[in-house]
Amino acid sequence: MTTPAAVLAEIERQFPESLARVRDLLRFPSIGTDPAHHGDCRRAASWLVAELAGLGFEAGLRETTGQPLVVGRHVPKAAEKAPHVLFYGHYDVQPADPLELWSSAPFEPQIRKGKGGNKAIFARGASDDKGQLMTFLEASRAWLKVHGSLPFRLTVLIEGDEEGDASHLDRFLKRNAREFAADVAFICDTGMWDRVTPAINTRLRGCIGEEVTVSGPRIDLHSGDYGGAAQNPIKVLSRVLAALHDGRGRIAIPGFYDGVKPVPPGLRRAWRKLRFPDRKFLADVGLSVPAGEEGYSVLEQLWARPTAEVNGIFGGYRGPGAKTVIPAEATAKLTFRLVEGQDPKKIRRAFRQFVRARLPADCKVSFADQGGDSTGITVAEDTPWVSAARRALEDEFGRAPVITGAGYSLPVVESFRKHLGIDSLLVGFAQDDDAEHSPNEKYDLDSLRHGTRAWARIIAEFARE
Amino acid sequence: MTTPAAVLAEIERQFPESLARVRDLLRFPSIGTDPAHHGDCRRAASWLVAELAGLGFEAGLRETTGQPLVVGRHVPKAAEKAPHVLFYGHYDVQPADPLELWSSAPFEPQIRKGKGGNKAIFARGASDDKGQLMTFLEASRAWLKVHGSLPFRLTVLIEGDEEGDASHLDRFLKRNAREFAADVAFICDTGMWDRVTPAINTRLRGCIGEEVTVSGPRIDLHSGDYGGAAQNPIKVLSRVLAALHDGRGRIAIPGFYDGVKPVPPGLRRAWRKLRFPDRKFLADVGLSVPAGEEGYSVLEQLWARPTAEVNGIFGGYRGPGAKTVIPAEATAKLTFRLVEGQDPKKIRRAFRQFVRARLPADCKVSFADQGGDSTGITVAEDTPWVSAARRALEDEFGRAPVITGAGYSLPVVESFRKHLGIDSLLVGFAQDDDAEHSPNEKYDLDSLRHGTRAWARIIAEFARE
Repeated sequence: MTTPAAVLAEIERQFPESLARVRDLLRFPSIGTDPAHHGDCRRAASWLVAELAGLGFEAGLRETTGQPLVVGRHVPKAAEKAPHVLFYGHYDVQPADPLELWSSAPFEPQIRKGKGGNKAIFARGASDDKGQLMTFLEASRAWLKVHGSLPFRLTVLIEGDEEGDASHLDRFLKRNAREFAADVAFICDTGMWDRVTPAINTRLRGCIGEEVTVSGPRIDLHSGDYGGAAQNPIKVLSRVLAALHDGRGRIAIPGFYDGVKPVPPGLRRAWRKLRFPDRKFLADVGLSVPAGEEGYSVLEQLWARPTAEVNGIFGGYRGPGAKTVIPAEATAKLTFRLVEGQDPKKIRRAFRQFVRARLPADCKVSFADQGGDSTGITVAEDTPWVSAARRALEDEFGRAPVITGAGYSLPVVESFRKHLGIDSLLVGFAQDDDAEHSPNEKYDLDSLRHGTRAWARIIAEFARE
Repeated sequence: MTTPAAVLAEIERQFPESLARVRDLLRFPSIGTDPAHHGDCRRAASWLVAELAGLGFEAGLRETTGQPLVVGRHVPKAAEKAPHVLFYGHYDVQPADPLELWSSAPFEPQIRKGKGGNKAIFARGASDDKGQLMTFLEASRAWLKVHGSLPFRLTVLIEGDEEGDASHLDRFLKRNAREFAADVAFICDTGMWDRVTPAINTRLRGCIGEEVTVSGPRIDLHSGDYGGAAQNPIKVLSRVLAALHDGRGRIAIPGFYDGVKPVPPGLRRAWRKLRFPDRKFLADVGLSVPAGEEGYSVLEQLWARPTAEVNGIFGGYRGPGAKTVIPAEATAKLTFRLVEGQDPKKIRRAFRQFVRARLPADCKVSFADQGGDSTGITVAEDTPWVSAARRALEDEFGRAPVITGAGYSLPVVESFRKHLGIDSLLVGFAQDDDAEHSPNEKYDLDSLRHGTRAWARIIAEFARE
């Protein structure tokens, strides 16, 4: 590898300009889910194309069924043996409302001290994902300024539907799989473990959504005239939902855990050493006791164990006061978080079978696929990418990165695996108090600076002289 | 007793005039729950006062916290030894919408053949309860024409809040209990067993309403970030509701059946003989199998056994598609139908204790009393009133009346028992196809004619010459 000293010096020198560029990007109210802002999405994308072109990349917009993609390509001087990296980010942002809770206008970026005393840039999208994606682009800029060429082939792919419908990018990648072939994806959309400890995320849970409707009588019945003789769909649905978990918090659907691997003992030990503040994590939302599977720590429950959650339920009378009906039907919405090894299609089938097996006479059930079908993903840790990131992050932050998981899903990671056959390296610099999706979103100047420097160190890991 | 031949002849003679009077009463759109029709309620009540005055009764309007009451009094010539009867009916009617489903205007009564080929008068309130209450008034009219005096003291009480808030009449009776002291109440607001078989109803279920809200996290949580570690109130509520009944359909709340008496073997046999069409009753609403307590017939389940029904449930996300939340709370609305012997207050306490005992750590529960507190009522069958009605109905219809129950509640029956200390004789002539509460409500001319004749025969049972 090359020592990155010169590049790091360049990053420090260019920092004011980097910050100015981040501010420029943050001024676009690129809310991908709001048709009124689709013009802003396209302007933000065009701005990024110009940036990439300015770096000497071959760059352009690509149309999708949603917002346009920004695509840029860099071919290094010694291209034959160089690996091929796909860098991913997104320029779309969450809606900014409620506006009255913002201390400064969401699309007029302001640099000021945050609550923790640390300087930050405040704007919608500062952390999610504009500030983050810029760490990689600014690292590339400094590297190119010093070396003229990156030590790998690079395709930059920046989308505009991350906060909306993931199927747009998925569909695009499916159709253009060959063109986007790469060895690995770098994604900068996750956070640090804490203010001083970097993190590499190697686990994401998948997710499937199901809506289940149990129906009984043809119409709502008077509970006086029929109560005691007629089947009540709310009772039936309640029994099904109550049966989903056993007394130890395990999901009782036959075959549900097929393929689920235990966390390797080494990783389990490492997680234990993190001393995750279970109590504070729960206390922050008004809880005190982990309510999941017995025998697992909170981190394991969140990062490494699948779940069945009821997200919503409704049936019968829901207005004020009483109405004496036996309802014709009752509906629940569920999501299952899945881990690697579980087959979303099999889980969906098993759940439906589980419900059908519990239906009494006179009840029918219908299911609506509420999307997802995303698998849980565990990224191998023994790859050169993870190893390089480990070393680089430790060099930058002075402490080894934590190997974390996440309880949520990043559909793009699955799209990359499914259509391109590649793993993702998830490295990001967001802080817990960045208020992504909330008013007063911010990105610490430290995150921008160290993030940029960390990427430069990762790039350096691949440079041979 | 007096043979009622002359009175029956007078009923036949006056029938066209009786029908004209029913039509006049049906023209008032006396919808008690609609403030726009409160003037019509008062006009209907005044019309009834004039009718009662025309019968020679002392009659007037009495104000309540709701719609005005019609009160009429008749004191027979030989008053000392005469029993005192309180006749009850209601002049308020259900709203008429949806209007487009009516074949003739709901407040322009029309006489035509119904679907079964029988002539009927079609109007809102024809069966519930204007036509029914007029059977008693027209019987009294014919009796008075022939004999000049009834064989009992009579207080007529016709209310205007039966379809609305029962507490208005209850409050009035509580305050005026002495004034309305009587030996028995006659109520004409129930139906025949079938087209040719009369019925006396001796059982009504009571009802209490409860709303239960289980709360867990302080706010709705992201099911990816918290799923597996955070308690889910929908799951907890489902478990509570699922535990309400055991595998044989019995309610599992400790003490729930305390005081419930079995149906006397004789009555049980009589009910069996009715050959109640279980299958048709259920098939009419899209069901086929009785879903209540094992070991009881459908009629027993409806008339003689208490229930716990969930009338509504809601919590979490209820819009289209999926939203990955763990909700902060979930709510269910329940009603318990009670039979004689059960104490509504005890049942309410026992239910709340049952829920509290099933709450895991971090869940709180709140309850809202949704009214009711009405007890189940069984009217004694060995009274002179029931005996008189049995004989009179058999004479009129040529077959013995069926002793029935009802699964619903008539709050007025409980008010009479609670404040006046009297039982009610429930005799009515409505048919199953009268469409009470629905478009095209009707009352068969046969119901009006035989109902009036039957009351004359009941009155005759008390006349000594």
